[in-house]
Amino acid sequence: MSEATGVTAAQGFRAAGIAAGIKKSGRADLALVVNDGPRTEAAGVVTRNKVKAAPVLWTQQVLTSGALRAVVLNSGGANACTGPEGFRTAHATAEKVAEVLGCGAVEVGVCSTGLIGEQLPRDTVLAGVEKAAAELAATPEAGTAVATAIMTTDTVPKQAHVTDPAGWTVGGTTKGAGMIAPSMATMLTVLTTDAVVERPLLDAALREAVRYSFDRLDIDGSMSTNDTVLVLASGATGVPADPAVFTAALTRVCRNLAEQMQADAEGVTKRITVRVTGAASEDDAVTIARTVARDSLVKTAMFGSDPNWGRIAAAAGYADAQLDPERLDVTINGVLLCRGAVVAGDRADCDLSGPDITIEVELGLSGGADGNTAEIRTTDLSHAYVEENSAYSS
Amino acid sequence: MSEATGVTAAQGFRAAGIAAGIKKSGRADLALVVNDGPRTEAAGVVTRNKVKAAPVLWTQQVLTSGALRAVVLNSGGANACTGPEGFRTAHATAEKVAEVLGCGAVEVGVCSTGLIGEQLPRDTVLAGVEKAAAELAATPEAGTAVATAIMTTDTVPKQAHVTDPAGWTVGGTTKGAGMIAPSMATMLTVLTTDAVVERPLLDAALREAVRYSFDRLDIDGSMSTNDTVLVLASGATGVPADPAVFTAALTRVCRNLAEQMQADAEGVTKRITVRVTGAASEDDAVTIARTVARDSLVKTAMFGSDPNWGRIAAAAGYADAQLDPERLDVTINGVLLCRGAVVAGDRADCDLSGPDITIEVELGLSGGADGNTAEIRTTDLSHAYVEENSAYSS
Repeated sequence: MSEATGVTAAQGFRAAGIAAGIKKSGRADLALVVNDGPRTEAAGVVTRNKVKAAPVLWTQQVLTSGALRAVVLNSGGANACTGPEGFRTAHATAEKVAEVLGCGAVEVGVCSTGLIGEQLPRDTVLAGVEKAAAELAATPEAGTAVATAIMTTDTVPKQAHVTDPAGWTVGGTTKGAGMIAPSMATMLTVLTTDAVVERPLLDAALREAVRYSFDRLDIDGSMSTNDTVLVLASGATGVPADPAVFTAALTRVCRNLAEQMQADAEGVTKRITVRVTGAASEDDAVTIARTVARDSLVKTAMFGSDPNWGRIAAAAGYADAQLDPERLDVTINGVLLCRGAVVAGDRADCDLSGPDITIEVELGLSGGADGNTAEIRTTDLSHAYVEENSAYSS
Repeated sequence: MSEATGVTAAQGFRAAGIAAGIKKSGRADLALVVNDGPRTEAAGVVTRNKVKAAPVLWTQQVLTSGALRAVVLNSGGANACTGPEGFRTAHATAEKVAEVLGCGAVEVGVCSTGLIGEQLPRDTVLAGVEKAAAELAATPEAGTAVATAIMTTDTVPKQAHVTDPAGWTVGGTTKGAGMIAPSMATMLTVLTTDAVVERPLLDAALREAVRYSFDRLDIDGSMSTNDTVLVLASGATGVPADPAVFTAALTRVCRNLAEQMQADAEGVTKRITVRVTGAASEDDAVTIARTVARDSLVKTAMFGSDPNWGRIAAAAGYADAQLDPERLDVTINGVLLCRGAVVAGDRADCDLSGPDITIEVELGLSGGADGNTAEIRTTDLSHAYVEENSAYSS
């Protein structure tokens, strides 16, 4: 696993990230990722929010063909809640990409991120596409330029790749820092691979990878209008990927990207992992872990480095899942503080001063090989989170 | 509606609130409310949290008889996650009240609030009961002493009463400021009435009143281990209550108390009402209103006086309820900002500088006499909330 290169780590891809002038700050705000083939399989997962941004509606349509030649992404505006006019902008952007690449607009995915409810400056975006097309390159620098151009409140570009001994590579980049959850959120991710991957495998592998990475990251329980994860396969190595190996590699890259998002979440001072074991089902494990991870009182306690296991037990208790208080154990950073929903260890033994906190909730309803477990990653609720999300519109 | 008198507004009740020494600060921490009859009908609603505090388990048991002579309440400790030892403390407290009043322990409700996971000092509590019993009085001051003794992070005592032209009164007191929702939370409420009310009516009226008051208040989505609402009917006026009129009166008192809780919630700088109209069902209206009220990004925007309707539309869109974006309108403080999920008015026209904010979400899926609506009250997410909940254990 390397974090040096992202979408251009795999062969067959060129990329560019430029400043189109969408952001008033003059920072990079438009990116283009092009699949030069020879193959063009693609798959995607988009937000389950019923209010979907125009680029999401566009990308959902073009994904039905199962093939993409390019993805164009912008920061500086979500193009969400912008009506027919916003959809025309997304469409025009895809047409412009198709024109400069000599392909069809239906082969172009579109992703946007930024403030909801404002029209994108269409001419600025279209001029940006031409500028980006002129700078396309297969270099690591070009991949980093993509990672940089899609940043909003992110403080660092995020990318990762793995190369399999068989010779193929999976790479990717992501952005997202605030509106993360219940299953991804303004979160845009582009993944690339030069393995030969048939569409059904690509689709299945992506769903599995997302399920155990972005879907298990829950910063504030909000789900955005724009979340999109796309994977493009060029087949440039000519090496067919083994399904299980490919799925594992894609999952590793997605988990690494999700960890980078967690570390860079808005206002984070603690990286928290909530691990639930012994649940009645895997769904119950996810539900309880997510409820604890989302609880404002748990999150503020963690910000205060306070091993307040009572709030954790209370949050587990109101989750919509099976729970028997007499079997409920809570462990924080390795110290068993609550056994059978009763005080066990000494809070003073539990040091939460560092940046990493692991909360373990054992439910005692399953175990051994049949144990149902889940992990959700989240962050604390800090003054900086409040500041960042109240001081300006985003 | 008056907020001057609470549990002693109705005839047939005596009360006391004293400093038993449970709180290290020396503040008032134990209260007793006694029903002198001639009748003793009672009903209650307790937390749906699966992790229930010892006093909740006790009170659930004694409520099955449908009659209570007294309620004893303490702050300074929740007696939750305290195992069999904690249950023995709750039982012993009821026994002590029964002894000083000359009734049975099964006629005594017990409520506690404070930190989860620590044993209450049993002898201190029992001595406090004797002290409180010696101070029982039917005066308004005694009611206020109860309201004061149950405070935790509350900054003001909360009480209300209404007197019906027929001659009977409903009064009550509540505490609760932090852990409020999804349906009440560390929230203790005692209601009293001197009307003649049969048990089935008392029970039905309480459920209806709670549904439209405490259940519609959602400060941070957390649900406590200790929430309890009790109503005691003395029948001292000898006047039978009309079912509809009594239910309305009880609801009015509960709504007034809920509004006092909202105004005094931890770290509140804005009182927010989320009103959803035109939903496919009343349940959907509640679900969407609750999702918007709970969204951290909406709450921080409100703290920043930012009319960020895009976050409201996004929150409505991920709620588990029917929604058609093309019919979604969002109005904040009377200014229509979003029509059909598209930008409508000008944010600049929307002044959120004051302490009260009304968010209206019109779904366009029902209307007129068949319109399904719901209101949820909440607060902003402020620096003070983070401070109060991270700086000390509670």
